[in-house]
Amino acid sequence: MTLLGKQARNAARAMRTATGKAKADALSAMAKRLLEQKVQLMAENAKDMAKARANGLEPAMLDRLALSEKTIESMANGLRQIAEMPDPVGAFSASTTRPNGMRVAQMRVPLGVIGIIYESRPNVTIDAAALCLKSGNATILRGGSEAFHSNVALGLVIQQGLADAGLPAHAVQVVGTTDRAAVGQLITLTEYIDVIVPRGGKSLITRLAADAKVPLLKHLEGNCHVYLDAAADLGKAHDIAVNAKTYRYGICGAMETLLVHADIAASILPRLGKTLTDKGVELRGCEQTRRLLPQALVATEEDWSTEYLAPILAIRIVNSLDDAMDHIARYSSEHTESIVTESLPAATRFQREVDSSSVYVNLPTCFADGFEYGLGAEIGISTNRMHARGPVGLDGLTTMKWVLVGDGQLRG
Amino acid sequence: MTLLGKQARNAARAMRTATGKAKADALSAMAKRLLEQKVQLMAENAKDMAKARANGLEPAMLDRLALSEKTIESMANGLRQIAEMPDPVGAFSASTTRPNGMRVAQMRVPLGVIGIIYESRPNVTIDAAALCLKSGNATILRGGSEAFHSNVALGLVIQQGLADAGLPAHAVQVVGTTDRAAVGQLITLTEYIDVIVPRGGKSLITRLAADAKVPLLKHLEGNCHVYLDAAADLGKAHDIAVNAKTYRYGICGAMETLLVHADIAASILPRLGKTLTDKGVELRGCEQTRRLLPQALVATEEDWSTEYLAPILAIRIVNSLDDAMDHIARYSSEHTESIVTESLPAATRFQREVDSSSVYVNLPTCFADGFEYGLGAEIGISTNRMHARGPVGLDGLTTMKWVLVGDGQLRG
Repeated sequence: MTLLGKQARNAARAMRTATGKAKADALSAMAKRLLEQKVQLMAENAKDMAKARANGLEPAMLDRLALSEKTIESMANGLRQIAEMPDPVGAFSASTTRPNGMRVAQMRVPLGVIGIIYESRPNVTIDAAALCLKSGNATILRGGSEAFHSNVALGLVIQQGLADAGLPAHAVQVVGTTDRAAVGQLITLTEYIDVIVPRGGKSLITRLAADAKVPLLKHLEGNCHVYLDAAADLGKAHDIAVNAKTYRYGICGAMETLLVHADIAASILPRLGKTLTDKGVELRGCEQTRRLLPQALVATEEDWSTEYLAPILAIRIVNSLDDAMDHIARYSSEHTESIVTESLPAATRFQREVDSSSVYVNLPTCFADGFEYGLGAEIGISTNRMHARGPVGLDGLTTMKWVLVGDGQLRG
Repeated sequence: MTLLGKQARNAARAMRTATGKAKADALSAMAKRLLEQKVQLMAENAKDMAKARANGLEPAMLDRLALSEKTIESMANGLRQIAEMPDPVGAFSASTTRPNGMRVAQMRVPLGVIGIIYESRPNVTIDAAALCLKSGNATILRGGSEAFHSNVALGLVIQQGLADAGLPAHAVQVVGTTDRAAVGQLITLTEYIDVIVPRGGKSLITRLAADAKVPLLKHLEGNCHVYLDAAADLGKAHDIAVNAKTYRYGICGAMETLLVHADIAASILPRLGKTLTDKGVELRGCEQTRRLLPQALVATEEDWSTEYLAPILAIRIVNSLDDAMDHIARYSSEHTESIVTESLPAATRFQREVDSSSVYVNLPTCFADGFEYGLGAEIGISTNRMHARGPVGLDGLTTMKWVLVGDGQLRG
């Protein structure tokens, strides 16, 4: 691991000043080579699939592990899209001139060396490597052992693409071992790794956070709320709540608890409850909710803090905007919350006072996604407070340095 | 500590939405009360001074510990200046409108709860509390045991000021114990503390970094370089080098190694060497340097990596801009470096390729300071790569949340 770290640190110096053209060329070359080597890649993937089947991996997991012609084409398209995005590196902030005449500005620069620790999906190998490369960083990739052969093969394609564009081969390195100790080493190599982006379930992230010395740009959980205010438009409220819950159950932006102002509960909940029940969503409600929705089970204290990632919804009736915000302050994971209201004061207060990484007005929480925000791509959604909060695009993989230009001004 | 953490977390919620006026009022009230309570504060400080003298504290340390009428007035002035600065909280980034009509922006918000761990100077208590309060955070202050009575007394003044402005008393808490274990607890209270700003020497920071679970906004060391390029103006080169070394020996922006292009070494070094020697600076040079400066001692490998913080300077002659940047890449602590040159290509390459938090052209490194950059105030100079690099002002004590406004747009 130390050798990989040293190689990455050296490569990072070259990557820092690589031109936007060289980086785009490398990404395009990778796309080309991915398509050319489809057959070999699928053959390597078949080894992983056979082992995974023998180990009795669940069908959903097998599905995520598989590389088909279609998934390889989609990876190549992703690479081409990232190639075409503007280079984030080298952008200058507006400069100010100080009273003594020296100019002060900030310049966007890469973070340095980024480690990615992820679970089984091999497409993350391409996706994460491409975003880190585009932002001028060197990358060390450590995928799940289930995808080992696939990841090593994809790593070779990436390094060929780097060579095609004249960039250092060590700019992207795939860890060539399934040894678990490698992860423990990666997260403590503060000398060689500047930040780790872990991608995986809550248990992986919690485990890494407990032992990491390298800063983590991490995603924990999304216990997201939609609050239907007394001044909500009932049509929008119904559609937003349904979309927030059912667009996809497994995403971190899925609504997990619905809060409804008591004034509109009787007007909205029966119809909304029916739509959700018809879609197969299990409802769990507070006492008042259950009077309006007999099909709802009893919501316990635990329900309010649970990220279901499943067709289950907790519902609570509240007496005011303040009660709704108190509930959110207490139970939310500070990921994404939304208010549905036509009242400007209510919208303003909610957006100002709710302390989550994304706070919406009249939108379903399932919009929490870098593409939807216009970032073009995302490495993940950060639940950190510092550096980058919410969807993280290329800018989140960079930092700023101060650049001052003078003409011999002295201090004191 | 857990109780302090809980109280801080509760206070942070109120502080998040405190108006700019309330925060400014609190700071002005603190300034007023500081001046009113001068006598009592000096009496409390005298207890610390007596104990420090009995423990044989060095005169320089005693000096930093002392609270005089003058230092109290200067603290009050600092408070008034921070009161008058614009409120960083609530600023919106330019918003974009997505193709579906929803508006996406970012809003500047406080980090939450900030812990400050610092050594003996009691003025840090006022200064750090004021900056954290202005940026809408709740703060827990843990000063050195030498300043215990002074800090507790200053903490009371701060809490009176908060009460005067109707802000929660727990928005600023001074840890009421000198127990060393308190620090160990503070740096691991991830549930209640969002970031720790340690202020002190390298040994303190290294010790904290080894055990911290809460992110640190930290300052390690400033091994700063000035490079006199072949195309340097010799007059500027002389004055910049002298200022960079001698403005103040003990600041992190002081030049520790001077790199000189071989082409100009004979024209500049004799005069520059004489100026520095006359000012009492000990010179340590490479072999070539010593041929031009007989008074210079031999610089060893260790000198290149040393932050002297003293009237000592290492000097090395290099053959090219690339050699200078290689030296910096190898030995610099990535704090502040400067090139002196009249060549635009050399200035551009240096500023782009040197990977330090501040990179200057034709300026002495001793400008590394938030006031000089126009930040109005600084909590410190960060040697982190993420979140905030270089001088950290009020913005560095805040973060951004995403705010989206729609009108019922749905996903998918």
